[in-house]
Amino acid sequence: MTEERWFQLTYWPLLVASLVFIVAYSWQVIADLQGTAESIARGLIFATWIVFIIDYLVRLWLSSPRGRWFRHHIFDLLVVVLPPLKPLRLLQAFTRISSKRTSQGTALRSRISVYGAGAALILIWVAALAVLDAERGAPGANIETFGDAVWWAFVTITTVGYGDYYPVTPGGRTVAVGLMAGGVAVVGVVTATFASWVLEKAAARSSDDDEPATRGQVRNVARSLAELTAKLGEPPAK
Amino acid sequence: MTEERWFQLTYWPLLVASLVFIVAYSWQVIADLQGTAESIARGLIFATWIVFIIDYLVRLWLSSPRGRWFRHHIFDLLVVVLPPLKPLRLLQAFTRISSKRTSQGTALRSRISVYGAGAALILIWVAALAVLDAERGAPGANIETFGDAVWWAFVTITTVGYGDYYPVTPGGRTVAVGLMAGGVAVVGVVTATFASWVLEKAAARSSDDDEPATRGQVRNVARSLAELTAKLGEPPAK
Amino acid sequence: MTEERWFQLTYWPLLVASLVFIVAYSWQVIADLQGTAESIARGLIFATWIVFIIDYLVRLWLSSPRGRWFRHHIFDLLVVVLPPLKPLRLLQAFTRISSKRTSQGTALRSRISVYGAGAALILIWVAALAVLDAERGAPGANIETFGDAVWWAFVTITTVGYGDYYPVTPGGRTVAVGLMAGGVAVVGVVTATFASWVLEKAAARSSDDDEPATRGQVRNVARSLAELTAKLGEPPAK
Amino acid sequence: MTEERWFQLTYWPLLVASLVFIVAYSWQVIADLQGTAESIARGLIFATWIVFIIDYLVRLWLSSPRGRWFRHHIFDLLVVVLPPLKPLRLLQAFTRISSKRTSQGTALRSRISVYGAGAALILIWVAALAVLDAERGAPGANIETFGDAVWWAFVTITTVGYGDYYPVTPGGRTVAVGLMAGGVAVVGVVTATFASWVLEKAAARSSDDDEPATRGQVRNVARSLAELTAKLGEPPAK
Repeated sequence: MTEERWFQLTYWPLLVASLVFIVAYSWQVIADLQGTAESIARGLIFATWIVFIIDYLVRLWLSSPRGRWFRHHIFDLLVVVLPPLKPLRLLQAFTRISSKRTSQGTALRSRISVYGAGAALILIWVAALAVLDAERGAPGANIETFGDAVWWAFVTITTVGYGDYYPVTPGGRTVAVGLMAGGVAVVGVVTATFASWVLEKAAARSSDDDEPATRGQVRNVARSLAELTAKLGEPPAK
Repeated sequence: MTEERWFQLTYWPLLVASLVFIVAYSWQVIADLQGTAESIARGLIFATWIVFIIDYLVRLWLSSPRGRWFRHHIFDLLVVVLPPLKPLRLLQAFTRISSKRTSQGTALRSRISVYGAGAALILIWVAALAVLDAERGAPGANIETFGDAVWWAFVTITTVGYGDYYPVTPGGRTVAVGLMAGGVAVVGVVTATFASWVLEKAAARSSDDDEPATRGQVRNVARSLAELTAKLGEPPAK
Repeated sequence: MTEERWFQLTYWPLLVASLVFIVAYSWQVIADLQGTAESIARGLIFATWIVFIIDYLVRLWLSSPRGRWFRHHIFDLLVVVLPPLKPLRLLQAFTRISSKRTSQGTALRSRISVYGAGAALILIWVAALAVLDAERGAPGANIETFGDAVWWAFVTITTVGYGDYYPVTPGGRTVAVGLMAGGVAVVGVVTATFASWVLEKAAARSSDDDEPATRGQVRNVARSLAELTAKLGEPPAK
Repeated sequence: MTEERWFQLTYWPLLVASLVFIVAYSWQVIADLQGTAESIARGLIFATWIVFIIDYLVRLWLSSPRGRWFRHHIFDLLVVVLPPLKPLRLLQAFTRISSKRTSQGTALRSRISVYGAGAALILIWVAALAVLDAERGAPGANIETFGDAVWWAFVTITTVGYGDYYPVTPGGRTVAVGLMAGGVAVVGVVTATFASWVLEKAAARSSDDDEPATRGQVRNVARSLAELTAKLGEPPAK
């Protein structure tokens, strides 16, 4: 079995596993489950984790050479080691966005915008769950409800940082560091997308004659010249 | 009637409706209206809303194909659903900025600067009104005067976030999230405009001979070559 | 007298006036002058203001057409209306930075870095003076010493915004808004300069043969072709 | 002895000196050493400082012309004057990253990412040590443990700035200003790297024929034309 075939076979199961994870985790944290319900939620979360670990190991085993695959899939390893990143898998559902747009640049920018916004929202939701899970009940903690946790996540990812809510436990702070790094990346992606648009507009020429010459054009000239040279090389028609 | 004709007919009425909205909303919130005066202000705001909804529906009805128009006018739908965004219509008043500038890049950059600054100021003003409307009188709220609300909006859109004022109600926090997103976009636009300027300067060549060859140039060479080939194809003058 | 001549004549006097302004303003605010000393400092500040107003009016009068000059020197008008911006004149002292660098892009980037760092430091110093001037003694104010004011200015211009110090008076907040806008611009300039460097490096080709063709090259080809055509048009040498 | 030779000879000794510095400094600050242990740690730190000063002086002495070397190695001078920057030397260990990647742009971007992340982590670690060293025990200080100092450094370098911890001593604030400047630079580098990637993708043409013409191509055409001209210049074959 090839890696490609495995990828197609596991597309839907992994998407469903991501959804199960996010629903079970949200349910466990928001409802602050105790007893049997908590066990069920934790069981579901653990099951999705096993699914992702198996998928990673099978893909590593199918790939060749393995060292190269490992180096090029560091992010997949991160998703396996850090379960809260699993919902980022849901972004794959957007892969089939139609891209019948005017230019390639525009198509790329709309795809980046959709992916960037989707990743930011998933990060905010998961970080709010994780920080609430870590902080609730800790001495001196001020993030005590899910509403406050979501608000804190928005304030953090945009790097505003009012300081009305902030984590105080090592676990909550680790989540916060990840979210801040995500915030710097979000600002970077937004800026890069705007910059690409401004540069494309600013470089637009008034007429096609002012565009840079293409390789195809010069190849045509070279071919014409070769034909002329060949003709002149023949003995002149008597 | 075509969509273009409708657009021209409604240009001034919609601009006036945006102005009426912002004046009525500012009056209602800043003066903290009660009784009859509040009813009048709310009536004016509601009337401008009706005007925008009718405009949207007529344009959707006139367009063809409608699915495509809908997808390309998501922002117009947002303005209809979220009335506080209506004043962004005022930016259209800048559409006729003369652009007799030295280069196309410079013209584009001055237009982006004017639009960006205008959009930022309108967002700050409207967000200050909306957050004051949501927060005033709420338990634990600290944004109680319009001056403080404007100051809070500036601190938020630049992502400084001192934390001397911050919203505590769900409504106020929703407004804040929109303003923070606007802040990230403003930083992105400023950076992209600077980047475009730096790149244009850094790429400037010392002489025209060093500029990239244009398509027009190569077309001229190809034409000369074709003429020469045609001439040589004729029987040599006896 | 031409505008160019006036510019050369007033180069040193205006630089000195900027220096006098910043020294007198620093002295007045930091030493919290009272009585005669305050009158002297205020007199010096007022005198430099008069100098800048006269310079602006003379240049407007010498220019032609005046409407165009006015539109292109909005920043000069800002400096005259807002005296604290006068020290930005000191940046002109860097105009003669030698630029014997390897490439034009590198020369441009080092100039932007020097100007950007200089403008940021002047903005921080002047904003610290202005905010201390506005806040000291106001009820509820927390910026009371020059050291705290400088620290506050650094925290604000980098958009960190801890919230340990913040202005509470309308005057202090106006200064803060200007400084935040400066902060967004500083981040934009730093990013744009890095982006220009990364893009130049990433676009570097391995050999000169892979660089885009230049206009000069194609002009040479066209000239050779024209010479050949002219030669063939002559009667063949018998 | 040439500068190049000296550089190779001192590569490993300086790397080890950087490591000794960071271990000794971490030990001294985190364990809050007193008495003999503190003297040993301070002695080690002082020894690494001497090593760096000697290296700088020898390289200045070997270089020619010295004025030019001095201007191009301002950063090296900074490292000597500000000992906490010494661990940045450790980044040199990454110099030998293999770069067998698909394109030059990708290779450059992965190198920038690795360097940027490494520099950010070293800055955070060293700033946390330096700020804890300056703040611990100062009246009114709130950064009292190493965990809080690291958390404060992350919150500062991403420009989030909650304000739950902030320095109050001149020494601690100086460290903070350096870290904030580093934060602005980190955001700039991240954005520039994303922008380079977006621009390269957006500029990718669908076929090689649509790429800009290269200098090599036009040189080939010019050579063919010259050969043809030379042939036609010969007497026609009888």
